[in-house]
Order: sequence, then C-alpha cells, then structure tokens
Amino acid sequence: MRYYAQPLSQLIGQLSKLPGVGPKTAQRLAFHILGMDQKDAQDLAKSISEIKNKLSYCSICNNLTQNDPCQICSEHRRDKSLICVVEEVKDVIAMEKTGEYKGVYHVLHGAISPIDGVGPEDIKIKSLLPRLDENISEVILATDPNVEGEATAMYISKLLKPLGIKVTRIAHGLPVGGDLEYADEVTLSKALEGRREI
Amino acid sequence: MRYYAQPLSQLIGQLSKLPGVGPKTAQRLAFHILGMDQKDAQDLAKSISEIKNKLSYCSICNNLTQNDPCQICSEHRRDKSLICVVEEVKDVIAMEKTGEYKGVYHVLHGAISPIDGVGPEDIKIKSLLPRLDENISEVILATDPNVEGEATAMYISKLLKPLGIKVTRIAHGLPVGGDLEYADEVTLSKALEGRREI
Repeated sequence: MRYYAQPLSQLIGQLSKLPGVGPKTAQRLAFHILGMDQKDAQDLAKSISEIKNKLSYCSICNNLTQNDPCQICSEHRRDKSLICVVEEVKDVIAMEKTGEYKGVYHVLHGAISPIDGVGPEDIKIKSLLPRLDENISEVILATDPNVEGEATAMYISKLLKPLGIKVTRIAHGLPVGGDLEYADEVTLSKALEGRREI
Repeated sequence: MRYYAQPLSQLIGQLSKLPGVGPKTAQRLAFHILGMDQKDAQDLAKSISEIKNKLSYCSICNNLTQNDPCQICSEHRRDKSLICVVEEVKDVIAMEKTGEYKGVYHVLHGAISPIDGVGPEDIKIKSLLPRLDENISEVILATDPNVEGEATAMYISKLLKPLGIKVTRIAHGLPVGGDLEYADEVTLSKALEGRREI
C-alpha cells in the first residue's frame, strides 16, 4: 500500500475490510469513487455515516425501521392475527418478496446454537410472548432450514403449545442446510403454502 | 427495494452503482456497514467524502498525489534521467510493485484510440515534452500491450526520435491484449528487463 498517496491507501484499506472485497477489488472501488461526481461521493458517504443513527428496531417485531412501529406493524391491511417468526431482518425482505404473506413478523435476531453459546435468552424470543393474546390465530415458524433454525423452531413450538396457539413450520420445500435469505421466491412460496402444524 | 426502510434502501441503491456490485452484494455490504462500529463507519464515510479534495495530480508526472510534486518526483534517490510513460495511475503502482524500477514516471491518463475519439491531444503527451532536456537518458514506453497502447507508444516514439532521445518499449513478456494493471510482478519485471529500442 506504500505506493499510494496516503488518503487513497487509507480508503483502500477501509474498503478491503468489507465482506467479499479483496485488495484488488478495494483498489478498483477506490478509483471508481475517485472518479465519481463529488455529489454522488458525498451522498454515499452521508448514507454510510447516517445509516446507524437513522435506523432502529421496531418495538413490536424487532424489524429494522426508520419509524417505530415499523411499516409492516403499522399497516392496517396486514393480518395482525398471523405472526411469522424469522431469524434475521433479511429474512423479512425475502418473505415480503414472495408477495404471498399478509401477516406480521417477529424477528429473533439469531437462532439457538449451543455450539456457539447462543441460548434461547440470547435471541428475541421473550418479546414474542406478550404479543400472543387471544387474537392470534397462528404463529408460523420460518427460521432457516438448518440445525440451528430447526432447534429454534422446536424450542418455540414447545413453548407455545401449552398456550393453545396453532404453531406451524414452513415446509421443507427449501433446500435443507441452506439459508432462507438466498431462497428464490417460488421455492419460498411453496414452502409457505405447504406449512404443517408441529 | 420497497421492503427496506428508506435509509437502508438508499444505501443499497448507492452501493449497487459501484463496479462489480450487484443488488445482493450491495445488500450484504449495507448490512455489514450497519453492523460496523460507529467509528469505523464514520471513518469510511469520511475517506469517501474527502478523497477527491485531498488528492490532486502531480504537476510534473501527473501521478495522483497529496503533495505537489508527488513522492516519486520529489525523492532524491530516484533516477531523474529515466522516465517511464504509463497510461494510468494504477500502472505506476503496478510498476512500483516490481521493485525494479528506480526512475520517474509520466502518466498519460489514457491512450490514443481513434475509435473512441481519443487523439494525442486528449491525453497528457504535451506535458512530457518540456521534461525532455539533455539530462534525460531514456524514455521507457510502458503503455498497455493492446492496440491503443501500441498506437500510443508508436506515436510517442515517432515524436521523440527526432530529439535524439533513446526511446524503449517494455518487452512483450506480458500477455498480449491484457491490462498492465493485472500483470504479476515477475512477468512485469521480465518485460522491463527485456525492453528494446524502437
């Protein structure tokens, strides 16, 4: 890096810390940024520096949002009696893209994984319970179809069964061992359609 | 993008304008930035917004620099009688990485390409001439080994020959049709070693 002017090598160093960005890519991005309109570069810098301050988590469903409660929780047309439990914010996006789901969400921000020291109290399961009043008709467990996701689904289903709430798991139309975020819309729609009570 | 909170979709949109960054990568980068330390994110934003203001071009060799003249032109140990002509700033970095070259540079910021409407007057050839006094022992043409680079090398060699200056071209040790920036150090060293007068 000693060959570059200092501000450039600094930017390259920072860019190469991003996931999937090696030194060559970082160099290409840095030169691209150097060649951008001053306004575009400023806008990008502003977005990066403000993203953390502008976003917070929805007090109802833990989704990322600019306003609290989030857009999905505050929308009148959504079916509030249906809660879909997902691991991550990205999974909400994946579900929304199917266009098939009209209920609301609960984002756990993780999955139970004893091997990584993540227990039920480390993810947002506790805040799901106060939401479960008599108006709730169904809780859909849409955690990832891998070991941690299955364990999390099992844990929640055992927790909710005594409350007499219908708990379903999305079908294994998804490739097992995969990541919900990367499923295509059709597969995810099929999985949603074929959900079964557990 | 309508599924995301607005600041997030804005950042994703801006990131996906970068070269080689598609919507999925932009999403991954945005979530990574969201999870970064506030300080790291601020530093990255600052580097992006300041890069254009902090850097300028060396008044001697047109290299990118923080101070004028650039580090290479102002270094006493460099052999000022040897000028290596390259197309881009990135090519200076590639040459420096070989560790074999101890002269100075001249960055053209492009190559002659009639098909793209780029003529000799559109790149920085004119500013090379005042540098060519009696102290110059050799001008090495290290433009890319493709049609435009060869045309540029031919043009400059014809321009400098009447002045009685030794003009050399780096050897075709580089894969022809390639890009100097991506050559490995050994190939580039060989090419430099095997340069011949034209």
